[in-house]
Amino acid sequence: MSQKQWTGVLACRVLDLRDLYGAVFADVAPQITLLTPEEVTNPESVDFVLSWAPPKDAFTPYPNLRGIFSIAAGMDAIMACPSRPKDVPVFRVEDPDQAAQMAGFAAFHIIWHHRKMRQYLEDQTHEIWNRPNSGRSPAKVRVGVMGFGFMGRAVARGAAALGYSVATLSRSMPAEPEAGMVHFVDADRSDFLARTDILVNVLPMTPATKGLFDADLFSALPNGAAFIHLGRGRQLDDAALLAALDSGQLSGASLDVFAPEPLLPGHPFWSHPKIFVTPHTASEAEPTAVAANVVKHLSAMG
Amino acid sequence: MSQKQWTGVLACRVLDLRDLYGAVFADVAPQITLLTPEEVTNPESVDFVLSWAPPKDAFTPYPNLRGIFSIAAGMDAIMACPSRPKDVPVFRVEDPDQAAQMAGFAAFHIIWHHRKMRQYLEDQTHEIWNRPNSGRSPAKVRVGVMGFGFMGRAVARGAAALGYSVATLSRSMPAEPEAGMVHFVDADRSDFLARTDILVNVLPMTPATKGLFDADLFSALPNGAAFIHLGRGRQLDDAALLAALDSGQLSGASLDVFAPEPLLPGHPFWSHPKIFVTPHTASEAEPTAVAANVVKHLSAMG
Repeated sequence: MSQKQWTGVLACRVLDLRDLYGAVFADVAPQITLLTPEEVTNPESVDFVLSWAPPKDAFTPYPNLRGIFSIAAGMDAIMACPSRPKDVPVFRVEDPDQAAQMAGFAAFHIIWHHRKMRQYLEDQTHEIWNRPNSGRSPAKVRVGVMGFGFMGRAVARGAAALGYSVATLSRSMPAEPEAGMVHFVDADRSDFLARTDILVNVLPMTPATKGLFDADLFSALPNGAAFIHLGRGRQLDDAALLAALDSGQLSGASLDVFAPEPLLPGHPFWSHPKIFVTPHTASEAEPTAVAANVVKHLSAMG
Repeated sequence: MSQKQWTGVLACRVLDLRDLYGAVFADVAPQITLLTPEEVTNPESVDFVLSWAPPKDAFTPYPNLRGIFSIAAGMDAIMACPSRPKDVPVFRVEDPDQAAQMAGFAAFHIIWHHRKMRQYLEDQTHEIWNRPNSGRSPAKVRVGVMGFGFMGRAVARGAAALGYSVATLSRSMPAEPEAGMVHFVDADRSDFLARTDILVNVLPMTPATKGLFDADLFSALPNGAAFIHLGRGRQLDDAALLAALDSGQLSGASLDVFAPEPLLPGHPFWSHPKIFVTPHTASEAEPTAVAANVVKHLSAMG
């Protein structure tokens, strides 16, 4: 039996996708030929584009695309690309391992805020033995997860497994409620926010989520809440976050995403004593998962 | 129906147990009278001792004890008390909420070491955007939990729920193996240690565990392993830990327990760049759980 052959083209402004994925695709999917745009001699033979942060005209040359594959969970730059053909399906990576990374990263920051771990690091530098926060039960801490897709589910389940009181917010109710969680829909967002001590954002970047985390949203949280930002930088009103931290409305924030990235030198987030900055490192799909995702969807197309 | 009345005496050298537990017992267990040793007029009427860090002669005056209750998970000071009558059962608190606190605290430190979170805090102070550790899969990190009792099980389950590759070490094989874990017994300790990237100690203090964490044990771990110490201070050879960190055999340590406590001023642990010191704060039983535990066991005695 001969195996169906596929040709894909790489499209990214900032990463060398061949360097990242060439060897893995050659290993697990030898039926796939991956080309840079410069290597394409017959644009009509290109079946798919593998992309992240594509150039504006990335999709223009290829009339016979059957799929567009994001190497990452976030697809906003691909969706917004002006040359993207609207009738070609776009596939995001759904990598259980990446979701586990995200769940662990979120759990770390939930506990960081709940147990006030920064205080222990500071106390250590002064040889201070002080236990004001012993015996703080996770069951009494209300974690709220905004976004209940592939990533949000993993984050919410991880927090619930560690005993936190978890609620989720999404556009529609999950078909099956999850054990140990409460689910809210967008129409009830103010109720969701009012019961959330630690807010975790894993929403995708869309027109509806741009600038969503603003003064109004932060003021709807209980006084002293914490904010963990794992979505997209442009969802956050930077000045509103700083104001909420400085007024005490928020007790702390963990930020993994920024607009733009890398976070600009001198930005006040870098030096704010209540902010933990990480360099967009919460989770990353394994190259093997990216390749497996492409093969799965191409195979389904026959 | 009249309810059985019980009299207990408080025995602790360092904590005011009446201040901590008096109101809760009065609320949830009015059938129990709690006395300080000075208040006891009829020692023969004392049914039980509620204790932590008891004085040497704490148990001597009471000939009719039916139970000794620890307010904490660790019972070592009670077990070692010379006046403890050997024929009276000793009960530890088994508080699911305390176990959840412990699981979260351990998870935090597992992720702290796995994701090299300290580096991000340091990079933040220098406005450095650097992502050398992105995409690190928890499934590839081998967590080893020493101790598989009430606390160890919670810690191991928490780490497994976050996707880590978990092994446990205990005196005997669990009756039922746990999903997603491998179990080792003490005879196979070197195999357990050889496959452990992040070692979590939640063993009780016993003659067998005193000084257990020494140069030999650390050298049996893979180079670059991390150590999370949530057991008892006297289980650790402080100098051996410092040597293992300074040679690079260990990449880091999180220490919550010390000998003595509080950790002595000027102790090298305070200022070591690879050590995260916390003030014996991983978990604490709720007073209501302590009271419920006493009532449960007394009621079972009829």
